[in-house]
Amino acid sequence: MNSVVDPPDPAPPNPDYAAATARLFAAQPVMAFLGAELGVVAPGRVTLELPYRPELCQQDGFLHAGVVTALLDNACGGAAFTLMPVGSSVLAVEFKVNLLAPAAGEAFVARAEVRRAGRTLSVCQAELFAQRGSEEKLVALMQATMMAVAR
Amino acid sequence: MNSVVDPPDPAPPNPDYAAATARLFAAQPVMAFLGAELGVVAPGRVTLELPYRPELCQQDGFLHAGVVTALLDNACGGAAFTLMPVGSSVLAVEFKVNLLAPAAGEAFVARAEVRRAGRTLSVCQAELFAQRGSEEKLVALMQATMMAVAR
Amino acid sequence: MNSVVDPPDPAPPNPDYAAATARLFAAQPVMAFLGAELGVVAPGRVTLELPYRPELCQQDGFLHAGVVTALLDNACGGAAFTLMPVGSSVLAVEFKVNLLAPAAGEAFVARAEVRRAGRTLSVCQAELFAQRGSEEKLVALMQATMMAVAR
Amino acid sequence: MNSVVDPPDPAPPNPDYAAATARLFAAQPVMAFLGAELGVVAPGRVTLELPYRPELCQQDGFLHAGVVTALLDNACGGAAFTLMPVGSSVLAVEFKVNLLAPAAGEAFVARAEVRRAGRTLSVCQAELFAQRGSEEKLVALMQATMMAVAR
Repeated sequence: MNSVVDPPDPAPPNPDYAAATARLFAAQPVMAFLGAELGVVAPGRVTLELPYRPELCQQDGFLHAGVVTALLDNACGGAAFTLMPVGSSVLAVEFKVNLLAPAAGEAFVARAEVRRAGRTLSVCQAELFAQRGSEEKLVALMQATMMAVAR
Repeated sequence: MNSVVDPPDPAPPNPDYAAATARLFAAQPVMAFLGAELGVVAPGRVTLELPYRPELCQQDGFLHAGVVTALLDNACGGAAFTLMPVGSSVLAVEFKVNLLAPAAGEAFVARAEVRRAGRTLSVCQAELFAQRGSEEKLVALMQATMMAVAR
Repeated sequence: MNSVVDPPDPAPPNPDYAAATARLFAAQPVMAFLGAELGVVAPGRVTLELPYRPELCQQDGFLHAGVVTALLDNACGGAAFTLMPVGSSVLAVEFKVNLLAPAAGEAFVARAEVRRAGRTLSVCQAELFAQRGSEEKLVALMQATMMAVAR
Repeated sequence: MNSVVDPPDPAPPNPDYAAATARLFAAQPVMAFLGAELGVVAPGRVTLELPYRPELCQQDGFLHAGVVTALLDNACGGAAFTLMPVGSSVLAVEFKVNLLAPAAGEAFVARAEVRRAGRTLSVCQAELFAQRGSEEKLVALMQATMMAVAR
């Protein structure tokens, strides 16, 4: 459905957006603590990756919903951040997560995109996939609002 | 507003609900990994506590929204679980979080309560407070659906 | 749970907040179209009322979720508006609704309160009750973000 | 983003799904009251259309968020219903709406698709577009849970 409506990638106001997003990601201790890594960074799109670790799981060995959320939220925040002016920071205002299937896999990838980039508020959607070999399965969806904050 | 409508604590169908909830909590490796501890366990109500740790933070030294969510989600799951029959497990179906203020403090407490306990689906609300000495400040709200799963 | 944390009613920056809220409500054609009426207006709190009408229902004779949302959303918007400066208007940014029970009754009342009043963004919660004689039953919950817009 | 992950249309368990969805829609008085019409009905996908009417608007002449929600919710419910077994009915469990832009236009169309079709719970996403001549603009997003109920 989205392919019909997705606009072409907008020109990001910060020409250095990719390096700025990498710095933002590196500045968040929790990402290293969880073992997450930044993947794709493009205007309005960011992916994050996380290998399976048993200490991040709930009682059935599935990735805990809080960790699922940390990945989706940071992917959305990064996606919104790529379209923000130089000197911005980004904060989450709110998000909603639907858990579609157990987050069971060898690795996980969160893919986020901006659906509306505003001066202050941006609305993003993200999907989390569980990977096993070359297969991947959709396990969670996020719909989120991110806010640009002047540094 | 809630005081008008909160029902008296329902009689939990599992008379051993408190010990069962403690076992459920202990069975989740991510809770120890984050450093969270189970607090109050009552019919339809659970609290979780977490001391501040810099490795759980985002770029400004505030508790990351994913960790905020992990606490709120587990408190809601626990609250719903206290009212489930013997032999149940609990899974999150979906949740929504509004972040009201930076999660900055010496410790954090999530307080959840069941607003509707159904046979399969329960709806819960939770609040996260940041504590500094004897003061506490509301920093996040969750509205969530939890599902009972027969073991 | 809320009774512990609810602050005393804040002093509204617009001393004429009650009349302004009534004008805002009257300016929305959809409220008359649905048959909704403004109830309580207090700083940070608004209620709306709606008598049962079969044309507002879904296939089982319950109030349709869109109408449930219209009431909850307008109650939240009104509650946020009571705490906004003179010359503001209010727009919904986002909301989430959990439907707890069929919205079956002779009349419905939505009660909203502000949980965080910010300069631009306010976070509100609301509850919808179905009434039959002197009894009322909780049927839906909303958690919403409202935005102040300068006129 | 979705084009990568959208599965081929699943075979609906109810071969008469299109007529059943039309009957479900016709059985909801609120749809006629609002003036909404059923558009596309395909396995896992439904669209609804609504011409502009001033009585459905808020104070600025934009479609009210409750009406926006009624369209998105019914499109999601219909999309989920197309994949349900013969003899089912559908109820909304919860939904979240982000309002991206004022709902200003000559007509509106809600497009919903199922992202996960479960035996009991289905998760759907929907988009609302405002149309003016041959142009359309994305104005709202929904992420929702629908439940199959045996008649």
